Amino acid sequence: MITLDEAAQLLLKKDDILILTHRFPDGDTLGSGYGLCLALQSKGKNAMVSCSDPIPEKYGYFTSKPKRQEFEPKFIVSTDIADTQLLGDKLSVYSDRIDLCIDHHGSNTHFAKKWYVDAGAAATTQIIAKIIKLMNAEITPDIANCIYTGLSTDTGCFRYTNATAETYRTAADMIEHGADAAAINRIMFDTKSRARLEIERRVLDSMEFFANGKCAVAYATLKMISDSKARDSDMEGIAAMARQVEGVMVGVTVREQPDNKYKISLRTVDGLDASKICAYFGGGGHKAAAGCTLSGTLDEVKKKIVGVVCRAIEEQA
Amino acid sequence: MITLDEAAQLLLKKDDILILTHRFPDGDTLGSGYGLCLALQSKGKNAMVSCSDPIPEKYGYFTSKPKRQEFEPKFIVSTDIADTQLLGDKLSVYSDRIDLCIDHHGSNTHFAKKWYVDAGAAATTQIIAKIIKLMNAEITPDIANCIYTGLSTDTGCFRYTNATAETYRTAADMIEHGADAAAINRIMFDTKSRARLEIERRVLDSMEFFANGKCAVAYATLKMISDSKARDSDMEGIAAMARQVEGVMVGVTVREQPDNKYKISLRTVDGLDASKICAYFGGGGHKAAAGCTLSGTLDEVKKKIVGVVCRAIEEQA
Repeated sequence: MITLDEAAQLLLKKDDILILTHRFPDGDTLGSGYGLCLALQSKGKNAMVSCSDPIPEKYGYFTSKPKRQEFEPKFIVSTDIADTQLLGDKLSVYSDRIDLCIDHHGSNTHFAKKWYVDAGAAATTQIIAKIIKLMNAEITPDIANCIYTGLSTDTGCFRYTNATAETYRTAADMIEHGADAAAINRIMFDTKSRARLEIERRVLDSMEFFANGKCAVAYATLKMISDSKARDSDMEGIAAMARQVEGVMVGVTVREQPDNKYKISLRTVDGLDASKICAYFGGGGHKAAAGCTLSGTLDEVKKKIVGVVCRAIEEQA
Repeated sequence: MITLDEAAQLLLKKDDILILTHRFPDGDTLGSGYGLCLALQSKGKNAMVSCSDPIPEKYGYFTSKPKRQEFEPKFIVSTDIADTQLLGDKLSVYSDRIDLCIDHHGSNTHFAKKWYVDAGAAATTQIIAKIIKLMNAEITPDIANCIYTGLSTDTGCFRYTNATAETYRTAADMIEHGADAAAINRIMFDTKSRARLEIERRVLDSMEFFANGKCAVAYATLKMISDSKARDSDMEGIAAMARQVEGVMVGVTVREQPDNKYKISLRTVDGLDASKICAYFGGGGHKAAAGCTLSGTLDEVKKKIVGVVCRAIEEQA
């Protein structure tokens, strides 16, 4: 691993820089890529960002900002990419040609010639902000928007445990440099797609309670998903809805799969071990979030998982 | 108005301090009151917090922390109270006996003998944090939890425009002093009451779209509210749900009143003036949020408001 300053100096020495972001791009990979691109362009360099997948329109407030430059890439940087598999189809040609990797995933596979990985950073943009400063580039309002977007989206708007004091301080910095935090958070956290609304109301309608309100079970069948026109991106966080109800210790979400199977997602609070419950059915995961797959009809599958969950709740009491 | 340091010195000179919080207590008035109470007790003083209304259980992680002390109050402080009407019934006896008022509402009526009001502070706890430091009291993890709670709840978890760089920096400080930000935000923003879930799914089910998806209309009848067992506190933010859908420029929420009337709430984005639309029916408000009251059946009321909203959307186009 190189140091942060070495990364900054390396970038200052290079030109015609192509920045790669991961497939299914999110606010952090894009905020990192575009923030770095803008900083490099401000230093008089050719720089551009690329992604295997289309970039969602909602990021347009910063993805529209770099100058469009045509050049043959001479130096290739990846941002927020833990593994070359995440490059996606279009960018996979660069797999063994990446010169510098900047990332915050502890699982990073060190695929690049040089890398800087800080698993303690809540977002890769938290690292990019420091590199830009070390490059002596100005943090413009556009760059500040890029950095803030990564911080906010990767921490669920500062809600998750990964948001550290430094994350908040970097956000403060970006606001002082002109980031429009409230507008960004409205786009990222206060807007849902029509399909999301449709699947959400169906899943909410399906919710049932067991074990004196301590277990909530919701489901999404293939028909519910197709009636809602929900894509995978619309399903994000659906598995957390059952757990969000007051008094619920175990939230269960049952999602129908195309092959007559059902994927079960468990979310727990108050120390109940979700991975233990899922291990009973050959699944696994973490203490507060785990999953498994069951076969049968929807009713059979619900009965099976509810039985085991209720027993776990009783044992805990 | 006195200075922040004068407020701190005044508190250090006094003892047997009663701290008043506002009725329908929220995270900021309670975080301010309990944070200040803990700091005063750490300075060897008698201090206690009082409120006219019951304190919601969810704040127990800090309201359980001060020592219970019995004393005859000699100095009375109010936190986050803009007007004596907000004292509520039980505390109204103190209306003209408040020695020091600490608040962040620009509308503060200066009812106390001395006051410190900073309308630029996102939360009153942002001010309390400074006073505690000026008092040379230690910011313990319990105090840090109090301060962080006010910052987070008054900014909608750092989403609203009132969250400034200083708000984020104060939050960073509190995390370094031991505030459990993720746990607090889970309680405050990631948990909904069963009644809230019930009314939410009914309101979502009622939602219809007009004007090519640019107008969303949802409603809550008295029956829906009573079937859900929803109290007023469960209805918070319900009026924003229609506006949160992608592509919606005007979100309309129709709420039945006991007197055969319907309260209309409008939320707009992209420059459409909600107060103008509501003024047409004798209502008013702000540009992005306004309201009015209509009579008739639910269908009549919906038709009336949708007609005017659709015309406003057309004119804007």
